[in-house]
Amino acid sequence: MAWARKILRVNLTKGTCESEPLNMEWAQKYLGQRGLGTKYLVEETDPKVDPLAPENKMIMATGPLTGTAASTAGRYSVITKGALTGAIACSNAGGFFGNELKNAGFDMIIFEGKSPKPVYLLLEDDNARLLDAAAFWGKSVWDTEEGIKAKHQDPQLRVASIGVAGETGCKYAAIVNDMHRAAGRSGVGAVMGSKNLKAVAVRGTQGVKIDNVEAFMAAVNAGKAVLAGNAVTGEGLPAYGTQVLMNVINETGALPTRNHRDVQFEGAAKISAEAMVEPRRSDGKPNLVRNAACFGCTIACGRISTIDRTHYTVADRPQYHGASGGLEYEAAWALGAATGVSDLDALTFANFICNEQGMDPISLGATIGAAMELFDMGVITSKETGGVALTFGNTQAFTTIVELTARGEGFGADIALGSKRMCEKYGHGELSMSVKGQEFPAYDSRGIQGMGLTYATSNRGACHLRSYTVASEILGVPEKTDPLSSDGKAGLVMAFQDATAVVDSVGLCVFTTFAWSLDDIAPQIDAACEGDWSVENLLKAGERIWTLERQYNLAAGFTGKDDTLPKRLLKDAAKTGPAKGKVNRLDVMLPEYYQLRGWTPNGVPTNETLSRIQL
Amino acid sequence: MAWARKILRVNLTKGTCESEPLNMEWAQKYLGQRGLGTKYLVEETDPKVDPLAPENKMIMATGPLTGTAASTAGRYSVITKGALTGAIACSNAGGFFGNELKNAGFDMIIFEGKSPKPVYLLLEDDNARLLDAAAFWGKSVWDTEEGIKAKHQDPQLRVASIGVAGETGCKYAAIVNDMHRAAGRSGVGAVMGSKNLKAVAVRGTQGVKIDNVEAFMAAVNAGKAVLAGNAVTGEGLPAYGTQVLMNVINETGALPTRNHRDVQFEGAAKISAEAMVEPRRSDGKPNLVRNAACFGCTIACGRISTIDRTHYTVADRPQYHGASGGLEYEAAWALGAATGVSDLDALTFANFICNEQGMDPISLGATIGAAMELFDMGVITSKETGGVALTFGNTQAFTTIVELTARGEGFGADIALGSKRMCEKYGHGELSMSVKGQEFPAYDSRGIQGMGLTYATSNRGACHLRSYTVASEILGVPEKTDPLSSDGKAGLVMAFQDATAVVDSVGLCVFTTFAWSLDDIAPQIDAACEGDWSVENLLKAGERIWTLERQYNLAAGFTGKDDTLPKRLLKDAAKTGPAKGKVNRLDVMLPEYYQLRGWTPNGVPTNETLSRIQL
Repeated sequence: MAWARKILRVNLTKGTCESEPLNMEWAQKYLGQRGLGTKYLVEETDPKVDPLAPENKMIMATGPLTGTAASTAGRYSVITKGALTGAIACSNAGGFFGNELKNAGFDMIIFEGKSPKPVYLLLEDDNARLLDAAAFWGKSVWDTEEGIKAKHQDPQLRVASIGVAGETGCKYAAIVNDMHRAAGRSGVGAVMGSKNLKAVAVRGTQGVKIDNVEAFMAAVNAGKAVLAGNAVTGEGLPAYGTQVLMNVINETGALPTRNHRDVQFEGAAKISAEAMVEPRRSDGKPNLVRNAACFGCTIACGRISTIDRTHYTVADRPQYHGASGGLEYEAAWALGAATGVSDLDALTFANFICNEQGMDPISLGATIGAAMELFDMGVITSKETGGVALTFGNTQAFTTIVELTARGEGFGADIALGSKRMCEKYGHGELSMSVKGQEFPAYDSRGIQGMGLTYATSNRGACHLRSYTVASEILGVPEKTDPLSSDGKAGLVMAFQDATAVVDSVGLCVFTTFAWSLDDIAPQIDAACEGDWSVENLLKAGERIWTLERQYNLAAGFTGKDDTLPKRLLKDAAKTGPAKGKVNRLDVMLPEYYQLRGWTPNGVPTNETLSRIQL
Repeated sequence: MAWARKILRVNLTKGTCESEPLNMEWAQKYLGQRGLGTKYLVEETDPKVDPLAPENKMIMATGPLTGTAASTAGRYSVITKGALTGAIACSNAGGFFGNELKNAGFDMIIFEGKSPKPVYLLLEDDNARLLDAAAFWGKSVWDTEEGIKAKHQDPQLRVASIGVAGETGCKYAAIVNDMHRAAGRSGVGAVMGSKNLKAVAVRGTQGVKIDNVEAFMAAVNAGKAVLAGNAVTGEGLPAYGTQVLMNVINETGALPTRNHRDVQFEGAAKISAEAMVEPRRSDGKPNLVRNAACFGCTIACGRISTIDRTHYTVADRPQYHGASGGLEYEAAWALGAATGVSDLDALTFANFICNEQGMDPISLGATIGAAMELFDMGVITSKETGGVALTFGNTQAFTTIVELTARGEGFGADIALGSKRMCEKYGHGELSMSVKGQEFPAYDSRGIQGMGLTYATSNRGACHLRSYTVASEILGVPEKTDPLSSDGKAGLVMAFQDATAVVDSVGLCVFTTFAWSLDDIAPQIDAACEGDWSVENLLKAGERIWTLERQYNLAAGFTGKDDTLPKRLLKDAAKTGPAKGKVNRLDVMLPEYYQLRGWTPNGVPTNETLSRIQL
């Protein structure tokens, strides 16, 4: 129970949709969502496949708790080989789409092949159809979602789609569901676009059965009480959203600024949570409209904002308008500090474009930041940018380039490559602030040492959501460690990685872990699912999932040498703040990490390790 | 399938919650919701019971299509003996509560007995608990719903509750779910209050299984196309809501005005759909904010309005604010034309009080209209009203009395009796514009003859939703008949009554029948449910349900003599408009109706009839 025990297999080449039983043996070993989706990808594809080839598959997967009454249980993940990275990709989204997919009676959808023409999948319970998407191709996420709902006259449909960025092959194109929640990173939207799959629209009424309702509700309600009583999940996130971090991380001296040249941004306060509630609009109101919760979430960290209609329009585009999701901290940082732009309206506008056309704002902002450094160096000039003076902090240049990128036009086509390819194109690969081709998020690893090891070893490329040691190093959760010290960080990172793999695989939001340990989560899983879901077994599953992803990457051609950071972080010391004089000590942490993992000094899991975790 | 096949039985006296299998033999004969709930009530209670006694039961029931992907399939009904009427009561509500109840895995909840103290039911899938409602007793519907969601930290909870009106025993107290959808008529909220049951909060993740998904989705989608293509359901209702009728019915000369003294209201245009979109508020915007759809509805007739905060406040109440549901046509008529009040803001304010404290606006407005007539006659004076000059059209007097009624204070306690008891108290029972104690809705039966027979024979007292012949007589659906002629109306009413009983029992909204006949509905039911659901079988079920309700009322003590109308409609001719000079010809229609039904001249079903319909 809890699992729907059923997979939908969609062959886009043949145009077929077929249902098959879920492999329950795998479900017991890999739970669901991230873990189970990866298992299917590993079993069914060649890790050396071109991410954009028809032979790559794209899996949309729920977890066993998705759609249940557990707090935050509305999530789903997209698992594929990442277009940005060439590594295993797993992008996790909130909103309401995941719940609907589970309610349609499926644990996952496996998309294979490539459609000869643009299509979308309409899934109404057991009734799956591929329909012509010609009318939606070239349209934004917003127009596509509204158009599909109107066409099928079903306001209850939940839609995940790509915008123009996914169609034109932006390497960090996102899949956006429920208008503004995104499976954002690693270019899963580019993979979807390469398959000529514009959207997935789902309506489900099949429900989610769980093993022991009474025990489950007791565990769920106990869990909710813990979330409500916690300062981060019960107060900070609901009141301020993730943007609560902007000033905190800036003061810590770990806010990467202007392509990581600096670690503190003089404009941080102007783009912070506090700024979002100041009156800014022509009607005297702030940009922030309200907060918003995903399905079943009792934290409600989401923000909805609006900006004046007349901001930042380009010639061929009518006045921009409407409210949408954001700003989140990561987006505000990448679009702002990383580019030196401190105009909150411009960042919100750019974030709306990301929602509307389906792009990862982290990679977008970071790549623009890198281009600005190259412009500053004279490597890129107005000739390449089409006359745009792409200097750090130039608001108008920034918004113009964002729009061009969404459409894949002009210099936007270079930005759409991501920082690694773009910097290499201009002969300066070292200026791409990325790992395995994926741009860093909003924590400078000179000021938060554990995040350096997190980034270097993350299986999907630089990522804060694979082991958010910021919780320990800055917020003191579950216990405070020194952000400037590398001591003990290998163990901390490994523990966070394995626990997070469980959370991502079971169908919960990683933000619960500010308050929950596996001691809070295990009783919920154990009551909902058959099997023995003790904390010990869950941790073993987490390690198994992590190592399976590692194996995929090794088979794809990555080696231990890819577990590294750009020289800037390893050699150029932070110039200001508490981390002044510090570089990241990956050299110390990485060998210790390999040893703890039971991997060889080259970063390869030993047979003994694989055997121990039943891989 | 389609049915959850399970009942929750809540004994409030004992404080127990127990699950039991649904009687599937009855389900095959009475479908669900209205029909099946009535069957359980008939089998389990004495029809002579005092509606407010613990021995009366209150049943919240879904239909087999509730929670499916069918358009409008979010409804539920409350079945009990009506506090206002002493007759069978079945009040049907939209919103999202019905879908949630079905998803919790129950077709219905049967509440029996009376709790020794205020409680609410928390139902989380199979986990049902009665909890102390002391903190919510005395609170409004809005505060109760928000309070319960906050207490249990579940934004996905759906809540149906009573306000202060239901607690203080207002005879037409409603049960309000989702903040502004109501099981509105016959005083079902007073029954709930008499049981010390403040609220029912439900969260369900069990889904709804249907027999043949492919056939079902084909039927559902064909049905949606019919709704979209129809002028009423595809254009009129979405664009203007039910208020589209105000000017139409006024021009027809069938808009009951000032307690049915007149049939046309000089202020109709001021309180119409057109007025709702005119700028009125201090910010230059109209009252109407947007339209709104219930669960799964593709019509979206609902309206959301807001009024300026400073309107119509009383001394001990802070400024009124917020947006809420309305105005609907019936509410605008009853609060407006029936009282002679043509101030749209005042009507919207009064309607908000109905949403907030749980009252039926039809009975409220009509009872105030009757009191105004008595005030006009000098029977009721300022002494009784506490100094309020309760003259027709007095806006301030009207809003004051509405607030007093919600709280059961002062002259409001008299208005809370309903027009029959109130008029009888003052020696003028003939001025109650009601049948079986329930006030008329917004169609004067002198101008629309079929509605007179509809009202007189309606099993729950005067009601437009038991056979809405307005569709035929005014809108020409399915075919036009002459509203001023009584010819053929007996057959028309019977056909509408039986078909509507099917729609109400299966889980759909009666508004679909502007576009759908049973030919559109039968394939949806047949694909979803086991059994043979041909149109013929459905019509037989409809007749069976109608007659079962009749049998309940006869056993409760009603006779054919109660199938009548107030003298005003039978003797006093309409003074203006197309119906000028007309009275209602119930004398002609009723005998024909009895004969068509296979009832004796006294209105009692013959044994032959009962046998034919398997009763």
